[in-house]
Amino acid sequence: MPEERSLSIVLFSGTDDKLTSAATLIAGAVAMGTKVHVLVQFWALESFQADRIEKDHGAVAEAGAEGSAEIRKLREGGAHWSDTLRMAKDLGDLRIFACAQSMEMFSLAQNDLDPLIDGVEGAAAFMGDATGALLFI
Amino acid sequence: MPEERSLSIVLFSGTDDKLTSAATLIAGAVAMGTKVHVLVQFWALESFQADRIEKDHGAVAEAGAEGSAEIRKLREGGAHWSDTLRMAKDLGDLRIFACAQSMEMFSLAQNDLDPLIDGVEGAAAFMGDATGALLFI
Amino acid sequence: MPEERSLSIVLFSGTDDKLTSAATLIAGAVAMGTKVHVLVQFWALESFQADRIEKDHGAVAEAGAEGSAEIRKLREGGAHWSDTLRMAKDLGDLRIFACAQSMEMFSLAQNDLDPLIDGVEGAAAFMGDATGALLFI
Repeated sequence: MPEERSLSIVLFSGTDDKLTSAATLIAGAVAMGTKVHVLVQFWALESFQADRIEKDHGAVAEAGAEGSAEIRKLREGGAHWSDTLRMAKDLGDLRIFACAQSMEMFSLAQNDLDPLIDGVEGAAAFMGDATGALLFI
Repeated sequence: MPEERSLSIVLFSGTDDKLTSAATLIAGAVAMGTKVHVLVQFWALESFQADRIEKDHGAVAEAGAEGSAEIRKLREGGAHWSDTLRMAKDLGDLRIFACAQSMEMFSLAQNDLDPLIDGVEGAAAFMGDATGALLFI
Repeated sequence: MPEERSLSIVLFSGTDDKLTSAATLIAGAVAMGTKVHVLVQFWALESFQADRIEKDHGAVAEAGAEGSAEIRKLREGGAHWSDTLRMAKDLGDLRIFACAQSMEMFSLAQNDLDPLIDGVEGAAAFMGDATGALLFI
C-alpha cells in the first residue's frame, strides 16, 4: 500500500458524461485509499442543485445526437453519477465543496444544493489545500 | 536529469484539436524522460477505433467553422496525432489503455481498437497507479 | 507554510467561463505561495491576442444561451479574467508563455499577444519543467 495520497479535483463541467467520468475516477481513487477533495463550480454546480441533480444534463457538444442518446441510456439504466459519489463517500475520504465564487455568481445558498455538498469553500483555500495531484474536469 | 517522473492522463475528449494537444504534451513528457500512462475513455475511445482513427474528428464547439477548418488543414498537412503517439512510444515509456467501463458502454472489443492501445484497464486500477501528476483532457 | 510548491497549467480553452475559472485558480494558488507556470495554446491563445483579449469570448456549449448571458454579465460587471491574471502577477510568481506550436499554427508573432504573455515556449520544455501538479483547462 502507498502512503496516504491526496487528489484535488475542480469540477467545472456539468454534463452527465463528464460527471460520470469524474465520479468513476473519484470512486476509483477513494477505493485505492486516496483522500479526495472536490471543488464544484460553474456548470457543475448547476447540476448539483437539489431539485435537478437526477435530471438530464446532456453531454458535451462533440457527443452529437447519437452519443447524447447513449449517455441518456446509461443514466437511466445503471448507477447515476450521484449514486457513485454517495457510495464513494461511504467507502473512504471524499469531501465535496461548492465554490464560493460560483455560489455568488448563480445566487445559490447551500440548501439549494444536494446533500452530497459538504460546505462552501473559496478557490484560494481549495488551492492552498491541494498538495497532491490536481484535476480539472 | 530529474529522477524518474510519472504522468497519468485521462483522455476523455475525442476531437482532433484536443488529441493533437494531448499527443504533443505526451511526446514532450516522454522526451524529457517522464513515464506516461494513458487511460482512453468516452469520446476519445471512439476516435481510437481502428477503422476511424485517421478520419475527421472535428474540433471543440468553441473553435467554430473557421477554427475547425484550421484543425482540418493541420491534420491533413502535418503529422497526425496518432503518428505523434506512435513516435512517442518508440522514444520512451508510454503505455495506453482503453477504459474498461467505456469499452462496455460502447460495446467494443480490443480488436476494434488501433494497435496504439496496449490493453484494457479499469478506472480504479488506473487511479491506483497514478502516483505522479494527473491530467484530464 | 508549505515548502515551495509548483503548479503547471496548460490553457487550451479560450471561452470566458473557463478563463475566469483558470484565472481564479491561478490567483488562489499564487496567493498561497505556489509558483505557477502557464502554457497558452490553441483557442486560449486566440483569446490572449492584444486586440481582442477584452472582447466577448463566449462560454462552453453546455452553458446555453442563459448561461452565456450570465458569463457576459459577469465579464461586464466585475473584474475581467485578464485583470485577475495581472493582479496575480503582481502578487507572486506567475509566468505565462505562448505555446510555440500554436503560434505557428495561427501564424502569430509575440507582439500580436497581450503583454501578459512573457514569451514563447515549446511543449517539451514546458513538460520538462512541470515537476509539480499539472492542470489542463
